[in-house]
Amino acid sequence: MKLPNPAELCIATLGPPRFPPPFAAQRRGTVDEARRVLVGALLPDHIEWAARGEAPPSFEPAGPRERVFFDGAVTTCGLLTAGGLCPGLNDVIRAAVMTLWHGYGGRRILGFRYGYAGVSSNSPVAPIELTPASVEHIHEQGGTLLGSSRGPQEVADMVRTLLRQRVDILIVVGGDGTLSGAQALVEEIHRQNLPIAVIGVPKTIDNDLFWVSKSFGFSTAVEEADRILRSAHAEARGAWNGVCLVKLMGRHSGYIAAHATLASGEVNFCLVPEVPFTLEGFLSELEARLRERHHALVVVAEGAGQELLAEAGPKETDASGNVKLKDIGTFLRDRMAAHFKARGLESTVRYIDPSYTIRSRSANSIDAEFCLSLGQQAVHAGMAGRTGMMVGQWNHHFTHVPLSLVAGKRRRLDPLGMVWQQVLATTGQPADLR
Amino acid sequence: MKLPNPAELCIATLGPPRFPPPFAAQRRGTVDEARRVLVGALLPDHIEWAARGEAPPSFEPAGPRERVFFDGAVTTCGLLTAGGLCPGLNDVIRAAVMTLWHGYGGRRILGFRYGYAGVSSNSPVAPIELTPASVEHIHEQGGTLLGSSRGPQEVADMVRTLLRQRVDILIVVGGDGTLSGAQALVEEIHRQNLPIAVIGVPKTIDNDLFWVSKSFGFSTAVEEADRILRSAHAEARGAWNGVCLVKLMGRHSGYIAAHATLASGEVNFCLVPEVPFTLEGFLSELEARLRERHHALVVVAEGAGQELLAEAGPKETDASGNVKLKDIGTFLRDRMAAHFKARGLESTVRYIDPSYTIRSRSANSIDAEFCLSLGQQAVHAGMAGRTGMMVGQWNHHFTHVPLSLVAGKRRRLDPLGMVWQQVLATTGQPADLR
Amino acid sequence: MKLPNPAELCIATLGPPRFPPPFAAQRRGTVDEARRVLVGALLPDHIEWAARGEAPPSFEPAGPRERVFFDGAVTTCGLLTAGGLCPGLNDVIRAAVMTLWHGYGGRRILGFRYGYAGVSSNSPVAPIELTPASVEHIHEQGGTLLGSSRGPQEVADMVRTLLRQRVDILIVVGGDGTLSGAQALVEEIHRQNLPIAVIGVPKTIDNDLFWVSKSFGFSTAVEEADRILRSAHAEARGAWNGVCLVKLMGRHSGYIAAHATLASGEVNFCLVPEVPFTLEGFLSELEARLRERHHALVVVAEGAGQELLAEAGPKETDASGNVKLKDIGTFLRDRMAAHFKARGLESTVRYIDPSYTIRSRSANSIDAEFCLSLGQQAVHAGMAGRTGMMVGQWNHHFTHVPLSLVAGKRRRLDPLGMVWQQVLATTGQPADLR
Amino acid sequence: MKLPNPAELCIATLGPPRFPPPFAAQRRGTVDEARRVLVGALLPDHIEWAARGEAPPSFEPAGPRERVFFDGAVTTCGLLTAGGLCPGLNDVIRAAVMTLWHGYGGRRILGFRYGYAGVSSNSPVAPIELTPASVEHIHEQGGTLLGSSRGPQEVADMVRTLLRQRVDILIVVGGDGTLSGAQALVEEIHRQNLPIAVIGVPKTIDNDLFWVSKSFGFSTAVEEADRILRSAHAEARGAWNGVCLVKLMGRHSGYIAAHATLASGEVNFCLVPEVPFTLEGFLSELEARLRERHHALVVVAEGAGQELLAEAGPKETDASGNVKLKDIGTFLRDRMAAHFKARGLESTVRYIDPSYTIRSRSANSIDAEFCLSLGQQAVHAGMAGRTGMMVGQWNHHFTHVPLSLVAGKRRRLDPLGMVWQQVLATTGQPADLR
Repeated sequence: MKLPNPAELCIATLGPPRFPPPFAAQRRGTVDEARRVLVGALLPDHIEWAARGEAPPSFEPAGPRERVFFDGAVTTCGLLTAGGLCPGLNDVIRAAVMTLWHGYGGRRILGFRYGYAGVSSNSPVAPIELTPASVEHIHEQGGTLLGSSRGPQEVADMVRTLLRQRVDILIVVGGDGTLSGAQALVEEIHRQNLPIAVIGVPKTIDNDLFWVSKSFGFSTAVEEADRILRSAHAEARGAWNGVCLVKLMGRHSGYIAAHATLASGEVNFCLVPEVPFTLEGFLSELEARLRERHHALVVVAEGAGQELLAEAGPKETDASGNVKLKDIGTFLRDRMAAHFKARGLESTVRYIDPSYTIRSRSANSIDAEFCLSLGQQAVHAGMAGRTGMMVGQWNHHFTHVPLSLVAGKRRRLDPLGMVWQQVLATTGQPADLR
Repeated sequence: MKLPNPAELCIATLGPPRFPPPFAAQRRGTVDEARRVLVGALLPDHIEWAARGEAPPSFEPAGPRERVFFDGAVTTCGLLTAGGLCPGLNDVIRAAVMTLWHGYGGRRILGFRYGYAGVSSNSPVAPIELTPASVEHIHEQGGTLLGSSRGPQEVADMVRTLLRQRVDILIVVGGDGTLSGAQALVEEIHRQNLPIAVIGVPKTIDNDLFWVSKSFGFSTAVEEADRILRSAHAEARGAWNGVCLVKLMGRHSGYIAAHATLASGEVNFCLVPEVPFTLEGFLSELEARLRERHHALVVVAEGAGQELLAEAGPKETDASGNVKLKDIGTFLRDRMAAHFKARGLESTVRYIDPSYTIRSRSANSIDAEFCLSLGQQAVHAGMAGRTGMMVGQWNHHFTHVPLSLVAGKRRRLDPLGMVWQQVLATTGQPADLR
Repeated sequence: MKLPNPAELCIATLGPPRFPPPFAAQRRGTVDEARRVLVGALLPDHIEWAARGEAPPSFEPAGPRERVFFDGAVTTCGLLTAGGLCPGLNDVIRAAVMTLWHGYGGRRILGFRYGYAGVSSNSPVAPIELTPASVEHIHEQGGTLLGSSRGPQEVADMVRTLLRQRVDILIVVGGDGTLSGAQALVEEIHRQNLPIAVIGVPKTIDNDLFWVSKSFGFSTAVEEADRILRSAHAEARGAWNGVCLVKLMGRHSGYIAAHATLASGEVNFCLVPEVPFTLEGFLSELEARLRERHHALVVVAEGAGQELLAEAGPKETDASGNVKLKDIGTFLRDRMAAHFKARGLESTVRYIDPSYTIRSRSANSIDAEFCLSLGQQAVHAGMAGRTGMMVGQWNHHFTHVPLSLVAGKRRRLDPLGMVWQQVLATTGQPADLR
Repeated sequence: MKLPNPAELCIATLGPPRFPPPFAAQRRGTVDEARRVLVGALLPDHIEWAARGEAPPSFEPAGPRERVFFDGAVTTCGLLTAGGLCPGLNDVIRAAVMTLWHGYGGRRILGFRYGYAGVSSNSPVAPIELTPASVEHIHEQGGTLLGSSRGPQEVADMVRTLLRQRVDILIVVGGDGTLSGAQALVEEIHRQNLPIAVIGVPKTIDNDLFWVSKSFGFSTAVEEADRILRSAHAEARGAWNGVCLVKLMGRHSGYIAAHATLASGEVNFCLVPEVPFTLEGFLSELEARLRERHHALVVVAEGAGQELLAEAGPKETDASGNVKLKDIGTFLRDRMAAHFKARGLESTVRYIDPSYTIRSRSANSIDAEFCLSLGQQAVHAGMAGRTGMMVGQWNHHFTHVPLSLVAGKRRRLDPLGMVWQQVLATTGQPADLR
C-alpha cells in the first residue's frame, strides 16, 4: 500500500471561515488542526520520511471548528443516499439533521429522494423537509428514509437544482460510484465558482475503501452474517455428509467473508476474491473433509472465483456501471452436488444467500455510534466550508479525505497479512486450494 | 372440522402398569386420567353430544402416571429425529434424556443417527449413547445433534435393529411421513407381539397438524420471519416503486405466512395456499398500490399459487414422498418484473427466500419451554407403556393422540376464520385477488 | 377453579345494532355468535352440565359483527393505558387506531395521557389526537406512547370529561385496579343512561387473570427473563461456590418465575408465592447443592416468601391500593450470605433485579401478534355497542368477558398441577422446602 | 498522554528461538518484526522524534514467528482467568486451546480454576485438562469455563505449582490487579532463572487500559448497555415527569457510559468520573428539563461523583485491593426524588443497575473475533519465548506490550476530546454541571 503524496491530502475550502459557530459560546472543545493524523503508522514509514526531512503524509483531522464558513441560521443543507442499502444510513441522516438543527441552528434541511435521481430536474418526487421530529426514530429501521437509486445524473442539471433549492451544503452518502458523482459535482460547482460545499460520507458494506480504516455497516454485516452462519452450521450437521454454502457480500474483497469466518469459528472453507482457487483443488479438499468429518460449512464472497465463471458469457454492467458478477453461489452449489454424485458420495448440499436480510438490517450499537460521528463530522466539515472531501477514520481518529484520493481504488485482503492467516488457522483450510 | 369418533381417540397400551416410578416416593403430582380433554370447545359441539347422551370425543391427558409399565433402571430408550430441520429438535432430545435419567433412573439412552436411516441394518453410523453431560448445552444450537434424513426404511429390518439394541421405547420426532413410518413400526411390533413402545413427537414447522393446536418451532419460525420482514420492508421502501417479495415456509397451509404478517404489521399482500388468486388479480392490485404508495411488501407461502405453475411440467416427489413444489417465489418475482416493465412502470423487485436460516435457528424461549414439555411427556407416555401415539397439545392441555388419527390429514387456514380475516384487515388487501 | 354461572357471562350492550360496518361491503367474515366458547374444556365439566340438561357456561366470541351500534365516521374513541408498564402496550394502541381508522372510518381518536389522570378535569395535559401516521412505528418501542399512572380518579368527574370530549367508546388498557376503575365508570355511565361504551384490554405481565388463558406481554417477559437467566447462570458458575439470585415479577403468582425456569433449563431453585418455604429448608438444600456442585442459580418471584418478611413492619400500599411487597430479593441475598459465612463456606452471592428492563422492552413477535388481535377485538366490541367487558382469550378463541367476573380474583399456580411438577422435575429441587 | 521511552517498549524473551513451528511447512505468513507499530499517530509526535533523529517509540508486532522457543509437542501451557467477569473470556480460552492444539501440536493444556487461587498449593480444585472437544461450544456462554476469583496468592507458592505441573507457558487473562500479579510471577521466575513464559491478555470491561486501544468485552458491553437504555427510555417516558437513572460500569473512566450514550442517542444526561459535577448543578438542569419535556434519561458511570459521597464514611477495599466505590446510583436516585418532592414537582424516579447482566453475556460477533485474535496472539507470543508482556492492539495492529508499562495506569476520557464533545452535542447537556 503506497503512501500518498502529502499534497494529495489537502482539502479544498470554499473560503476563509467567517463566523463563530453558535455552540462556541458554550466553550465546547473544537479540533486542533495541528493534530494531523499520520497515514503511515509503522516504523519503516516513519524512518523513511524522517530521513528525507519532509513532512510525512497526514490527514486533516475532522471535527468542529472555532470559526465556520456558513451562518447556520440561513444555511440550507441537502442530504441524499445512493447505491445499495447498508446498515446505518438512517443513523447518518439522523445525526446530520440533529447536528445542523441543534448545533448550528439550521432550519432548512432537504432530503433529496432516491439518490441523484432526486436532484435531477425530472425527479418524480420533490425533496422532503427534515426536522428532528421527522428523524427521531428512523435509526430503529434499516434501509434509508430518503430512498436510494443507482447511477449518475446529468451534472449541470443537478447543479441547477441545487441553485434553485438554494442548497449551500450537499451531503452525499454513498459508495464508489456515488463519490465519483460527488467529485464531478464539485468540479462543475468550482467551474461555475459557486459557494456550495459537497461532502461525502463513504458507504461500502464491503469495507474496501482505501484510506478509510472501517466503513459503516460493516460491523453490523459481520454480526448478522455470523448469526446466519450459526444456522448454516446446523444445516451442515443436520444431514449425513451435509454441506452448507453461504454466499456473503464482497464484490472485490473478502472482508465480510473473512471476518464473519473469524467471528463464527465454525467455518471450514472461506473463499475470497483475493485468493484464487481451482474447482478441482477446492472440491478434493472438501471431499476429504466430508469423508473424515461428514459435514462442512463453506463461505464464499460474491466476487470470489469469477475466473471460474468466465466461460458463462460476456461481462455485463448495472446502472452504476459496476460489472455484474456471475453468481458464484449457485455455480458452486451445482458443481459440489455434481462432484459428489460423480464420486458416489451420498451428500446433502444446501445454499444460503442472505444478502438482502443483512444489508437492510438496522445498525447495531457499534455502527449506530460510528454513524452518529460520521453524520456529525460531515456537518462540521460542510459548515466549515470544506468541499470535495469525505469523512474517514484512520488510526482511531476521524479525518478529512479528498475525494480525488479514493476514486476508483479499493482495499483488498492481503493473503500474507494477519487477517487471512488467522482465517487459515481458524478454518484449517490449506493456504493453496489450486 | 369434523370431530372424531370417541373410539378413535383411545390409546394403545403394551400392558398393565407394573411399577411405581422412582419419583413417586417424592409424592409429586401425577396426572388424573379422568380429566380428559374435550376435543370440541364450542357450545354447538357440546349441545350436540349432550343431546345424544353420549360421551363426547376427548383426549387422554399426558403426564406422569402413578404406576408405569417399564422399570426405568433397566429400560433402553432410543431416540431419532427425521425430516426437515425445525427449531427445538435439540430441546426435545435434551428434555427426553434428562427425564429418563433423572426421573426414571434410565442409564441406556441411544440416539439413532440421521432419521430412520440410523435404525436400518446398513446404517453407516452406529447410535450414540446419550447422557445428561452430552446433551447439557445442545439446546443452544439449532438443528439436531442426531442428524436427520428423509424417507422410510424397511420396517422388519428396523424392528430387528430395535431388538438387537434391546430398545424398549422408541421416541420418534418428525413430521407427517415420519409419523406414518412410526405407525408402520407399531403395526409390525404388534404383529410380532413385542413389548416395544413407539411414541411420536410431532414436528411440523408449518403448524398444520390436525388435532394438535400448536407444533413446536412454529413460534420461533414466526419470530424469525418477522425479523426478516423488517429487512424486507426496508428493501421495499429503499427504492422508487420498490417491491420486496419474501417466500415463507408452508407447503399446504399458510400459517407461518399469515402469523408473520400479523406479527409484522407491515405486509401489504399475503398469499397462501388456502386462498386462490390469479396472476392478473394480484398484479393489478399490486400495481395500484405502487402507483399510490410507491412501495410494497409481499409475503408468499411456498405452497401458494401452485395451480399457476401447473404448466411447468409434471409433478415430482422427494425422498419422503412429498410432492416437490414448483418455486412460486422465483415465478412471482419474474412475473412481477415483467408486468411492470410491460406497463412502463419503473420499479425494483427484490426476492428473499430465508427458509434455511429460519428452520435452523435455535428455539426461542417459548419453544424451548414447549419442547421441554413435549420431551418430558413423551418419556412419561413411553414409560407408562403407551404406544402408537404422539404427544399433542389441545386447549392448553398436553394430550395423547393416536397416530392413526392424524395420518395424512392437514389443518389449513379457514378463509372465513378469524386469522385470515385479521390478515385482510391488517394488510388492506382485497379478500379476493382473482 | 369453580366454573361461573352462565348468567354471569352475559355481556351488557348499549342497544341494538344499527349499522352495517363499512367493511361489510367487502363480504369479510364476521363472527358467528352461536359459536360460544365453553369455559370448561375437560370431560368432568361436560358430564356435569350435560347431566343437568342446562346450557354450560360459555363466553361470547369476540370479533367483527354483521351490524354495529355506532356509525364509525362520526364516532369518537378514547384510549388510555394505566398501571405498570408491560410489553405490547403500544401494539394494542396501534392496532386499535388502525382498526378504527381503516376498518370503521373513524377519524377522531383521542389518547388520554397518563392513565385515568388524563381523564380528570385537572389533568395537566390534554389528550392527543391519534392517527395512523402518529402510531405507525410505536410498536417498535417499549412502554406506552400515552404514558401511564396508577390510582383512581373521581368517577363523575371522568364521565364529565368523556361527555365534554364527546367520547363514544373508551378503551382502557390496564390491570386489576384499572379494570375495577372501568367497571366503576360503566356503573356511573349506566346510572346517567349515557350511550358510552367502556371496553377493557386486560394487562398483567404476571399472567394471573382469571378466565383469561394468557395476558399480553407475558411471552416477552418470559423470553427476556430467560435471557437474563443465561447471564445469571454464568455469574453463578464464575465463582467458587457462586450463587446467583434473580428476582422476577410475580406479586401473587409465580408464572413468570416458573415458565422462565422451564425455558432456561438451568435453574436449581425456583421460589414462588404459591409454594411456601422456610428459610431453614431452603438454605440447607442450597448448602447441600453448593457442597456438591459448587454453584447454584436461584429464581424468586417478588411475591414469594412474604410470610418470612412479616417481622419487618406493617403493610403499606401504593397509589393503586396494591399492598407494597417487602423485598424478598435483598432479604434472601443477605440471609444466604450470612448463612454461608456462619457455616464457614466460602461463597460469592450475586443478586439481579431486572424488573424494569423486562417490563419496558418492546413486544416480541408472539406478543406483537397477540396485541394486534386484542386491539382489533376491543374496537369491534366497542363499535358493536358492547360495554362493561374486556377482551379475553380462552381455548385459543378470543372472547368477551364481563368486567364484573374478574374483579379482585387472581389465577395462581397449582402446586400439584403440570407446570409446577415440571418445574420440580427440571430444577431437581425438593417438592417441599420447609 | 506522554509517549513512553522506546526502551520501555522492549519485550523480555526467555532465549533465542530454536524450532520452526509446525505450520511453517505450509508457508503461512509470519510476522515481519521490522514492522513495529508507532505509538504516536499524530503529526506533532512525528516531527518531535524526527527532529531528534531518534527512533520513535514503537511496539513489537504480535503474530506467529518463523522460529519459536518451545517445541509444541512437549510443551505444557496453563491458562487462568481472574477478576470480574467480562464478555469474551471463553472465546479467549477457546482460541488459545485451538491454536496450541492445531497450530503447535500442543497436547497438554491445563486450565487452572478460579484465578490465582487455582495455582495456589491449597486450591480446593485441581486444574482441568483442556482439549478442542471440551472447549468447542464454550464461546456460546458468558462467564468463564475456568471460574474466576479476585486477589493475589503467595508468589513463590504459585511458582512451585507451575514447576510441579511442568508448565512452560502461563497465559493469564485479567485486569489491572491480575496483570500486576503476572508481573510479580515473572520477577520470581526470573530470580529463579526458570524457562517459564508468562503472557497476559488484558481484560477490562471499562476499556481504560493505557497503550491498548480497545479491550475485549467493551463492544459487547456497549451493545448490551444500549439495549438497556431502550427500556430505560421507555420507563422515563411512561410516567409524568418520569426520570430513569441507569448506572453503568466504569470505576475510573466513563467509556461505557459515554459510548452507550452515543450509541443510544436518547440519553439526556451522562455523568462520568472524569467530569466533576455538583448535586445542585445537576438537579437544577434536570428539573429544567422535566419542566419543559416531562421526562429524562440519565446515565451515570459507577465511579462518577465519588467526591459527593465522601461524607458517607471511610474508604474500603475489596479482595483485589480495589477501592470499594460508594453507590452513586442509589445516592442519586434518593437525592433526585427528595429534590423533586421538596420542589413540589410530581415525578417518578426509576433506577436500573444492570451490571451483572451486561458483564456475564456471551461476546457479540465483534468481540468474538477480537478474542479469537487475542487468544491466538497470546499463544504465538508464549511459544516464541516472550514473557512479562501482554497482547495489545494499537492503530489496528496487534502488539506486544510490556507488563511493566501499564501497571497502575489508567486511560480516561478527555473532557475536551472528541468523544466527550460528541456526548455533549448528543445529549444537549451543559458542558459544566457545577
